[in-house]
Amino acid sequence: MPRKIADSTVRRLAVYLQFLEEFQQHGYPTVSSTALAERAGTTSAQVRKDLSFFGSFGKRGLGYDVSGLVRRLHDILGLHHRYRVIMVGAGRLAGALVQYAGFRERGFQIVAVVDTDPEKIGVSWRDLRIEDAAHLDTIIARERVEIAIIATPADAAQETVDRVVAAGVTAILNFVPVQLHLPREVDVKNVNLTVELETLAYALTHRRSA
Amino acid sequence: MPRKIADSTVRRLAVYLQFLEEFQQHGYPTVSSTALAERAGTTSAQVRKDLSFFGSFGKRGLGYDVSGLVRRLHDILGLHHRYRVIMVGAGRLAGALVQYAGFRERGFQIVAVVDTDPEKIGVSWRDLRIEDAAHLDTIIARERVEIAIIATPADAAQETVDRVVAAGVTAILNFVPVQLHLPREVDVKNVNLTVELETLAYALTHRRSA
Repeated sequence: MPRKIADSTVRRLAVYLQFLEEFQQHGYPTVSSTALAERAGTTSAQVRKDLSFFGSFGKRGLGYDVSGLVRRLHDILGLHHRYRVIMVGAGRLAGALVQYAGFRERGFQIVAVVDTDPEKIGVSWRDLRIEDAAHLDTIIARERVEIAIIATPADAAQETVDRVVAAGVTAILNFVPVQLHLPREVDVKNVNLTVELETLAYALTHRRSA
Repeated sequence: MPRKIADSTVRRLAVYLQFLEEFQQHGYPTVSSTALAERAGTTSAQVRKDLSFFGSFGKRGLGYDVSGLVRRLHDILGLHHRYRVIMVGAGRLAGALVQYAGFRERGFQIVAVVDTDPEKIGVSWRDLRIEDAAHLDTIIARERVEIAIIATPADAAQETVDRVVAAGVTAILNFVPVQLHLPREVDVKNVNLTVELETLAYALTHRRSA
């Protein structure tokens, strides 16, 4: 196993994997770094560099063996394991995410949903029953949760995350537009939909005035 | 208006704005670069550098005027304008996004939803009726759409985006895990939820083996 690599490299590996699995589904036995780079929006030099981190997979003139590379990227990213995920907050975005097939397909299984709203507690979402967030720590222990998705109101996010971390969770996907303060050993990824739209607004404004 | 600034700077400005509005709601007249940096997860030097791009706002020892800075960031990001947005694809994720209040609050108004599925066409989502994606170009013209959110199945995304761009849309928020090929003048932001989870999986795996 290589030493810790940069987050940006890991992200590209995850993107390569998506396209490699597409190639695999279409029955292509090999793929060139150029073809992979084009799909992933990067350069073939970058692809070769990223993959050389983990030993040399490509054969000059033949390209990469698709199935072999898919297996290897699964190993590297840790995708042979199934991850048990808790959804914290049961609003509309959470509802969509629970039903989003892409997570399950990649081995991320949502095993519990919690909320503080008495009107929501007890309601069933597919095969999940929304539980009382007051019992967050016992639910996390019972379900052996490894990853928490945070989708609470903004003003509840930090306090909730503190409890999630105290219960032993060290990987967090945060959809709330706040900057969470977390111990160094906790990994957090932020998805901030408003910031994405505002950078588009900036681009449109800049173009109009250009 | 300053020359084109880096995307990473624009993203930080959007993040600062969120916290400044929070400060404003709590009635704080001024804020230091240190306080802003702490919330936004960056350094006070970075905050001062980012804001100096647009002229000097801070007063030594007094900090930034919160309301003034909020107004100025609204100007810079182009948020005084209301943006008309089309949702392309009417699956579960799209349904959640249409109802997500955060977009409307920031001035991003979803004015149309389209899909190709005959079972979905004609169904009402709040005050929107799902329309036939076959009429994408006339709907974009009729609604004077500026931004398209792409939430189609993966294999339909590129073809759909080509039609959206041909109809004159130049800003795209893409939720489909594919790399879209677009003309240079089109701005696209990608939100790839699977990649976020996989980088967390990598972190968990690396830690376990460390």
